[in-house]
Amino acid sequence: MPVSYYTPTRVVFGKDAISELKTELKLQNATKVLLHTGGSSAKKSGLLDKVISILDESNIAHVELPGVKANPRLSLVREGIALGKKEGVNFIIALGGGSVIDSSKAIGYGLKYDGDVWDFYSGKAKPVASVGVGVVLTISAAGSEMSDSSVITNDEDGWLKRGCNSDVCRAKFAIMDPTYTFTLPPYQSSCGTVDIIMHTLERFFHSGYGISLTDNLAAALIKTVMVSGKKVLENPEDYEARASIMWASSISHNGLMQVGNENRGDWSCHQIEHELSGMFDVAHGAGLSVVFPAWARYIYKAHAERFAKLGNLVFGLEGDNEKVALETIEKFEEFFSSINMPVHLSEMNITLDEKTMEKLLDKLTNNNTRTLGIFHNLKREDMKKIYEIAQ
Amino acid sequence: MPVSYYTPTRVVFGKDAISELKTELKLQNATKVLLHTGGSSAKKSGLLDKVISILDESNIAHVELPGVKANPRLSLVREGIALGKKEGVNFIIALGGGSVIDSSKAIGYGLKYDGDVWDFYSGKAKPVASVGVGVVLTISAAGSEMSDSSVITNDEDGWLKRGCNSDVCRAKFAIMDPTYTFTLPPYQSSCGTVDIIMHTLERFFHSGYGISLTDNLAAALIKTVMVSGKKVLENPEDYEARASIMWASSISHNGLMQVGNENRGDWSCHQIEHELSGMFDVAHGAGLSVVFPAWARYIYKAHAERFAKLGNLVFGLEGDNEKVALETIEKFEEFFSSINMPVHLSEMNITLDEKTMEKLLDKLTNNNTRTLGIFHNLKREDMKKIYEIAQ
Repeated sequence: MPVSYYTPTRVVFGKDAISELKTELKLQNATKVLLHTGGSSAKKSGLLDKVISILDESNIAHVELPGVKANPRLSLVREGIALGKKEGVNFIIALGGGSVIDSSKAIGYGLKYDGDVWDFYSGKAKPVASVGVGVVLTISAAGSEMSDSSVITNDEDGWLKRGCNSDVCRAKFAIMDPTYTFTLPPYQSSCGTVDIIMHTLERFFHSGYGISLTDNLAAALIKTVMVSGKKVLENPEDYEARASIMWASSISHNGLMQVGNENRGDWSCHQIEHELSGMFDVAHGAGLSVVFPAWARYIYKAHAERFAKLGNLVFGLEGDNEKVALETIEKFEEFFSSINMPVHLSEMNITLDEKTMEKLLDKLTNNNTRTLGIFHNLKREDMKKIYEIAQ
Repeated sequence: MPVSYYTPTRVVFGKDAISELKTELKLQNATKVLLHTGGSSAKKSGLLDKVISILDESNIAHVELPGVKANPRLSLVREGIALGKKEGVNFIIALGGGSVIDSSKAIGYGLKYDGDVWDFYSGKAKPVASVGVGVVLTISAAGSEMSDSSVITNDEDGWLKRGCNSDVCRAKFAIMDPTYTFTLPPYQSSCGTVDIIMHTLERFFHSGYGISLTDNLAAALIKTVMVSGKKVLENPEDYEARASIMWASSISHNGLMQVGNENRGDWSCHQIEHELSGMFDVAHGAGLSVVFPAWARYIYKAHAERFAKLGNLVFGLEGDNEKVALETIEKFEEFFSSINMPVHLSEMNITLDEKTMEKLLDKLTNNNTRTLGIFHNLKREDMKKIYEIAQ
């Protein structure tokens, strides 16, 4: 039996949380920091300068590595490892969202490993150590600020997108100021909303035993995020809604939503989506918004009771299980559409011709060496049908 | 701004969680353990022998200190500190519920402090270090297995009951097997149910800003515990209900129920109850079951909106705020009565004559040097009225 809940991340949450960065860095004994960032938004907003001035005040040296893109790439991770080794970095600050954090975690692993960091993502090796990562969060979506997860895309060899889960990479601290997400564009905000809901749903669809408390917390989280996700489209500076979404992003993926359940949940939708976003570079949340309804429509009749339970808890639906199950899927589709997320691949201008489909399936099955899902096991032909429904 | 959420405790949750004790002790580098327990139930159930055999297998020496009572006492804490110093203890296992854990935390503080351990409870000093505490939980109630809190009763000087909050004392691990609570008597089970609900309500009644996610999670937790609390009276071996209650005990008090709120909540009910249980040695949960309705009835008109919000989220009540607020208080009273908890002091055979009342108030106000409450500030005369309503 593994540890069921372990969230050592020191969370500083609220307006002006950044004022605690100095204290947190001191606690970590950081002396030379790799400051890892994405595009130019942190520079534009002044947050990058703020962090640098705090490092300077604290007499902590730093080296910058910007340039993380959505679906963070192995080539930049390798660059970060080389830079960190050369510069003698002993702490990493991830300033950004899930992509920056995941890239930072990968660099953290690599700095403590003599082999190839991809070993941890291909499953060849398990991480046993990492340089510490601290987060200054600017996007609510991936939940990587508290999760044990990091997902990297191998842009050097076949664009495989693979994850690595280990407690070793959990962030030491997370500075979470909801006002940093006020400037997030509507599309990215909605992608975050879907991602948070899906991190909760993947765990809801576990197999075996579970507990009502975790089901009820999951439903409360999903309902809150649905309300808040709409609110931030109407008013991007709605502090309360941004705050609820930001905290939901963390607790949807830190393990809370699986406590007492027999296992970590299904995760097929994430795998099916990872290959899409690896190949077409679509935003993860938008990809999930397409994949979940397709997956659910393909399997729900075999699991009508569980889908109906979800529909009852989230939407108050009652009645025949199979009927309620389908209504539940439709309700999620309606909600995703209402926040301008796609529910079909065609809405993202993606067409899967025969050749592309087979390539996707080769990657998704690791050349026919793996199946997916613990709630509902999927073979290659099932995955194909789900992609077809998604079109 | 302090850290908002920090729960470093490694939680092993589920049937046979004890199988991980060996691994967890190894992670803590324990070589000489103080095994702290309550009465005879752990011995009778065989759990004490099980823990001892795991210590023996792990080549970890141990010394036992049984005898913790409800409202754990300073005299035993002092005994534990002396024993631990003499024996060179470097880790403490708390085998029991909140009282044993709180006593263990106090001993942990004392083993790293040259002064008088009561200094931390009287507010004279703040703890900066502690010998590590690991928990094998047998009672779901206090939430001390994940909280930063320890409450000790000074049986050597005036029976003052005082708490100390510090991240320093958070348990290193918590072994949580819901089956250990199957044998909990109905009265103690219901006391736990009330305690869990009250840890959530104290935080719900914060002042200033808050976030809807935390409100909604609080309501989901309270509703689940109400259902589960009734189920375990009907069937003490209902695993799912026992598991939901056990996990609720932890997350009602580990900080989750206050994230995003301006402060930690009110806590007047706890203070008012502490003096009762310090003086009359009543069970904490039963005391809270009496105090909350009295406190709520005394203040609700000044805060009708917040009480009505609670009633809406937990009971689905709607309408005029003041009307719904009162209905909400009545619903909680009905529920407490339905699980055989008292809602008046007379049900516990406690009468507060004038002299007793003044003595209670002297203690509660620290001889007129403190007021209570952040949601609703209470002066001595307010406290008196609440005790009167409670009679």
